[in-house]
Amino acid sequence: MTEPLFTIPLWADLLGVGLGGVQGAMFASGFQGQRRLDWLGVAIIGIMIGMGGGLIRDILLGVPPASLQSNWYLLTATGAALFGMLLAGLFNRLNRIIVVLDAVVIGMFGAFGTSKAIGFGIPPVPAVFIGVCAAVGGGVLRDMLMGLPTAIMHVGSLYAVAAGAGCAFIVIANAFGMSITLAAIIGIIVTTIIRVLAVTFDLSLPEQRRLYRRKVAAETGMIPVIKS
Amino acid sequence: MTEPLFTIPLWADLLGVGLGGVQGAMFASGFQGQRRLDWLGVAIIGIMIGMGGGLIRDILLGVPPASLQSNWYLLTATGAALFGMLLAGLFNRLNRIIVVLDAVVIGMFGAFGTSKAIGFGIPPVPAVFIGVCAAVGGGVLRDMLMGLPTAIMHVGSLYAVAAGAGCAFIVIANAFGMSITLAAIIGIIVTTIIRVLAVTFDLSLPEQRRLYRRKVAAETGMIPVIKS
Amino acid sequence: MTEPLFTIPLWADLLGVGLGGVQGAMFASGFQGQRRLDWLGVAIIGIMIGMGGGLIRDILLGVPPASLQSNWYLLTATGAALFGMLLAGLFNRLNRIIVVLDAVVIGMFGAFGTSKAIGFGIPPVPAVFIGVCAAVGGGVLRDMLMGLPTAIMHVGSLYAVAAGAGCAFIVIANAFGMSITLAAIIGIIVTTIIRVLAVTFDLSLPEQRRLYRRKVAAETGMIPVIKS
Repeated sequence: MTEPLFTIPLWADLLGVGLGGVQGAMFASGFQGQRRLDWLGVAIIGIMIGMGGGLIRDILLGVPPASLQSNWYLLTATGAALFGMLLAGLFNRLNRIIVVLDAVVIGMFGAFGTSKAIGFGIPPVPAVFIGVCAAVGGGVLRDMLMGLPTAIMHVGSLYAVAAGAGCAFIVIANAFGMSITLAAIIGIIVTTIIRVLAVTFDLSLPEQRRLYRRKVAAETGMIPVIKS
Repeated sequence: MTEPLFTIPLWADLLGVGLGGVQGAMFASGFQGQRRLDWLGVAIIGIMIGMGGGLIRDILLGVPPASLQSNWYLLTATGAALFGMLLAGLFNRLNRIIVVLDAVVIGMFGAFGTSKAIGFGIPPVPAVFIGVCAAVGGGVLRDMLMGLPTAIMHVGSLYAVAAGAGCAFIVIANAFGMSITLAAIIGIIVTTIIRVLAVTFDLSLPEQRRLYRRKVAAETGMIPVIKS
Repeated sequence: MTEPLFTIPLWADLLGVGLGGVQGAMFASGFQGQRRLDWLGVAIIGIMIGMGGGLIRDILLGVPPASLQSNWYLLTATGAALFGMLLAGLFNRLNRIIVVLDAVVIGMFGAFGTSKAIGFGIPPVPAVFIGVCAAVGGGVLRDMLMGLPTAIMHVGSLYAVAAGAGCAFIVIANAFGMSITLAAIIGIIVTTIIRVLAVTFDLSLPEQRRLYRRKVAAETGMIPVIKS
């Protein structure tokens, strides 16, 4: 009854989940001081980034989450999170890698979300919306779980805009007859380029500590005292 | 397979979404200082208030979200959010309008939620529960996204109680044979009146800045320094 | 169409909901000072703990939430929450009871979640995942609603680990041919024992106020001033 009319190839889906897991774990490993997470916390964030977007996509589509119909998604996300923790331990400043990985990941999640929505016969505007939710959903869940102000509300315009541009491209290209696979690949590239350019144009992502400071300041109206 | 046994007329649904979008954007525009949102953030809050309650309702009912089956919901919510931003720019103190709009909106979302639940054969108690979740869900999502303490947990008793009274009226009136349409209309009026009276009886909604202050104090146990 | 292939007996489900409601309300009643909740807030937390895990389980399974198909769940959760409030008023320090209750509750929710997932044909790894989400989901929702840092991310390793051990036992025992009912009962005992031992080994749950202090410190990097 809920057989997918459109199937994302398993390897592509798992690639997105794996990259998301690596990115999430590297991000979470970066927390210092009192916010430091234990390894389980880092793994949870990795799984959340790897699988959260797809879960939200399927809930919005009203279908049983694809990532829970097979063992591979959770195994991939967990393995990737462990790998991301190791990587984060090897390098000290990984902002550049995290930014690029993150851009590719939101591109993939957005493209899969929009493609799946089109396959289910969802009209263009909500199809883009579902893609954007799939792209940014994992990060929103992460911020809610960690009690951080949701990044998308404060520094994340680029995020949602980049994801939205890629998803909109897919819907439009598909309407003009382009194959959904080609449209999805170009959509991923569009999102990645916009996001990386946006970050580069701002010279660099705000440094973790300054970002944290700004977030706490935005949150409480007070400047935090950080003991490093 | 999940064809609605009961359909809320599209215009009524869109009216609720639109009013919610206006209300959400006006509320979000009111934030000053470090919490100030950019226009995308304001639009997201507007969409969330306009569509969040209906999404939660449909997820609880286990059906694909109605608001994602047509282009009109997102277009209406976005347009309404932009309109709400303009309105908020024109007037300075809009608390009274926001309160009344908000009361009507929670009344409508509650009534639609309960009516749809009844149409799906949900028993009376969970039907009221789904209505209340639909009524307050958008606001809860907003507070979570903005990293605010959830209003319903601290100042919101009136909220849930007003929504619950309207939804309970619908369930009871329907059990006594009143047509669901008439019951829903009276339910909206019941919720609106209780909510507006409750706020008026407290003389007025706490002023935005004082509310913010109290919230931060409640959250952190510290008094924030606000630079206006 | 979504007829359950596996049914948890209603009395067992309601027992879990009721114990969760009592535990949630006792926990919420413990808040002092500026975080103090009114009775409605306490009832909401009780309902959330009693029903939140099952809601998340059914959303992840893609089926309409079982707890909204009958009046009994909400009535039980609400009644249990009121009872929990009374209990909390009678005793002063209830940490020990809350801890044991909580361990039994996460054991039951985890066991029901994993069993139901197995009944729906979900593979082993996501079946354990759904069980863990069902076990810890109510607590995560509670923390999000109250604007607390999610306990599972900071002090909750024991939580997720204990729930995971019980759920993994069920999946493995079931694979070796043990009846699902017996496996579920042993799984509940496994989770309860691990959780209670874990807390006891740490001597005791951190005292409420110190926990709160540590949480705010972890959240903001500042030490809160508490006026008692």
